[in-house]
Amino acid sequence: MGGLYWQKGQPNQARERNLYDLLIHERTFSRLEARLKPLAEQIAPYTLNDSSEFRRPWGSEGSKGVIAYGNTDAFFSPAVRDFVKAVYATPRLAWFQSIAAGLDNEFLQKVGQKAEIYTVSHVQAHAIAEWVLWAAFDFFGEGAARRRSQQDRKWQKVPFREVGETRWLIYGFGHIGENVGRRLKALGAHVTGVRRSSAVSPFADHMLHPDQLTEEEIGLADAVLLCCPLTTATENLADANFFSAMSPSSLFLNVGRGPLVDEDALVVALDGGRPAHAALDVTRQEPLPPGSPLWGHPAITLTAHTAPTTAGTDRRNDEQFLENLSSFLAGKPLRHEVDAEAFKAQSSVYGT
Amino acid sequence: MGGLYWQKGQPNQARERNLYDLLIHERTFSRLEARLKPLAEQIAPYTLNDSSEFRRPWGSEGSKGVIAYGNTDAFFSPAVRDFVKAVYATPRLAWFQSIAAGLDNEFLQKVGQKAEIYTVSHVQAHAIAEWVLWAAFDFFGEGAARRRSQQDRKWQKVPFREVGETRWLIYGFGHIGENVGRRLKALGAHVTGVRRSSAVSPFADHMLHPDQLTEEEIGLADAVLLCCPLTTATENLADANFFSAMSPSSLFLNVGRGPLVDEDALVVALDGGRPAHAALDVTRQEPLPPGSPLWGHPAITLTAHTAPTTAGTDRRNDEQFLENLSSFLAGKPLRHEVDAEAFKAQSSVYGT
Repeated sequence: MGGLYWQKGQPNQARERNLYDLLIHERTFSRLEARLKPLAEQIAPYTLNDSSEFRRPWGSEGSKGVIAYGNTDAFFSPAVRDFVKAVYATPRLAWFQSIAAGLDNEFLQKVGQKAEIYTVSHVQAHAIAEWVLWAAFDFFGEGAARRRSQQDRKWQKVPFREVGETRWLIYGFGHIGENVGRRLKALGAHVTGVRRSSAVSPFADHMLHPDQLTEEEIGLADAVLLCCPLTTATENLADANFFSAMSPSSLFLNVGRGPLVDEDALVVALDGGRPAHAALDVTRQEPLPPGSPLWGHPAITLTAHTAPTTAGTDRRNDEQFLENLSSFLAGKPLRHEVDAEAFKAQSSVYGT
Repeated sequence: MGGLYWQKGQPNQARERNLYDLLIHERTFSRLEARLKPLAEQIAPYTLNDSSEFRRPWGSEGSKGVIAYGNTDAFFSPAVRDFVKAVYATPRLAWFQSIAAGLDNEFLQKVGQKAEIYTVSHVQAHAIAEWVLWAAFDFFGEGAARRRSQQDRKWQKVPFREVGETRWLIYGFGHIGENVGRRLKALGAHVTGVRRSSAVSPFADHMLHPDQLTEEEIGLADAVLLCCPLTTATENLADANFFSAMSPSSLFLNVGRGPLVDEDALVVALDGGRPAHAALDVTRQEPLPPGSPLWGHPAITLTAHTAPTTAGTDRRNDEQFLENLSSFLAGKPLRHEVDAEAFKAQSSVYGT
């Protein structure tokens, strides 16, 4: 078992001159050990397990600074507070690899200000796109009515809509929007993207600037998906006016951030039958309190910010971390580096 | 209102020499009227509504024989018995357009023996593929656990599997198999097809002859889908041995015909945890009696032979009917004609 965090007071000569410390969850380390071992002359792993125990599998404390891998194992560990404290305590945070796309929480903001290099990840877009398809197939496929028929032991036809025949409006056409759009297009659906960049995408039939988005366009959509950054411009984007423009047979989905939606207005809108249903993986307050009316609303499908939570996401994050680690040690640019500017005004950014 | 079925006893001179009668549901006729009108010199519609009323929107009984369009409106009408009687009663059934892929019921067999030309349809493969994806996303996406968490108002992560990361075995690689395979490949899944024809398909990673299917191959699959014809060779294809070869974390799906599955063996297999879950749109006895143990089994998702039931299927069937009607009147070959041989021995065929 290693020391508590970093030996701030130790004289330099006790440290290995050419080593970076690598702060990493023990389970992640076990998974990657064989691929980290060849880098033993450059990195000294410092592992943390769920029982808050730090260990040094090899090497001793380095003098070149700390690399930290803030992944699912670390962030959702019972020992997350120790992980955070260790990151805060390092005298020199050379590089922080996050597995989040967003920067919109206090810890990530502080880390971003402290880190010399900060990288984000967009690989969760694959899993999030699968969550979107799950919600879409269940809504358009009349999953609730099918389950009710089965429960009632009633052999009855339940006509449904094909996702491939639907028209989508995807607000925010970054990594998530593109991953959703690519799958929907393959299924035959019609996709309209909304983003500030005017660049076309092979995964959208057409692209709008946010200023071009009309109520008519919203009303044409069978499904409206929010997956844009949370900024001062997008907070409460989906409000009473927005919902009143939606089709009464449509599905509203949010996988971005809770505050994109005026939740009170959403409940009123659903009660009024427009849109027909909402699927939410994010809420304004997380964890959502048990007393929230969102939980029990018959027209809401709600999951606990869980859309990225797959083995595929973990594997893709590990691959990106290892690729970035190799670039870092070779002094090359990393994938998805975040400009330091992004940490000066939290409300203006989300992702890269 | 027209006469009751056909005026068998009427002398020939009362009939219009160059007309075919078109037996069609009134609702279908209304939908297609504008596109049928230009054919008024060749066809005389004879419509049937849900109240068992026959009408002649134009023309009088023809002498050239009867064309019948056996679609959803007709087959699932309260007046279906009148539709069937009218088909049986026609002295000359020149062409019957079915919207079913299969021939495996008594009525279709009798019609096939009577009709000079009999055509089937495979357009329902699109909707059926959507049903398969719905069942797959809900199983691999942990839909049941997600709904339970919401019901219990518990904000908890539910890790899930991406459909795009799964490996599929699709038994029967005709229209349905190809439509499922195409969508799965677009999502990133691995697809193995099983069919008697050795032809490769762009929608499968590899193709096996039924004789090449090993228990090991079955065990590799995360999902096994049956969508093959029901024949003496495939009846009870999925039996106790088949299920015992499946992976304990796998999904079994049947959209073919109920008798492909030994249902007693399936229940025992699910109780033993192998496969993990079954999704069935067809059962041995349809409608499934309320007392069947399939209804209430916690590891079974069951729908009422409803996978093809979409507006898209109706529209595609209408398009195929109109295309075939135009070919028929021009004396050209029709799409998906069934060889008369197929109606001589029911158990040897299913679809074309």
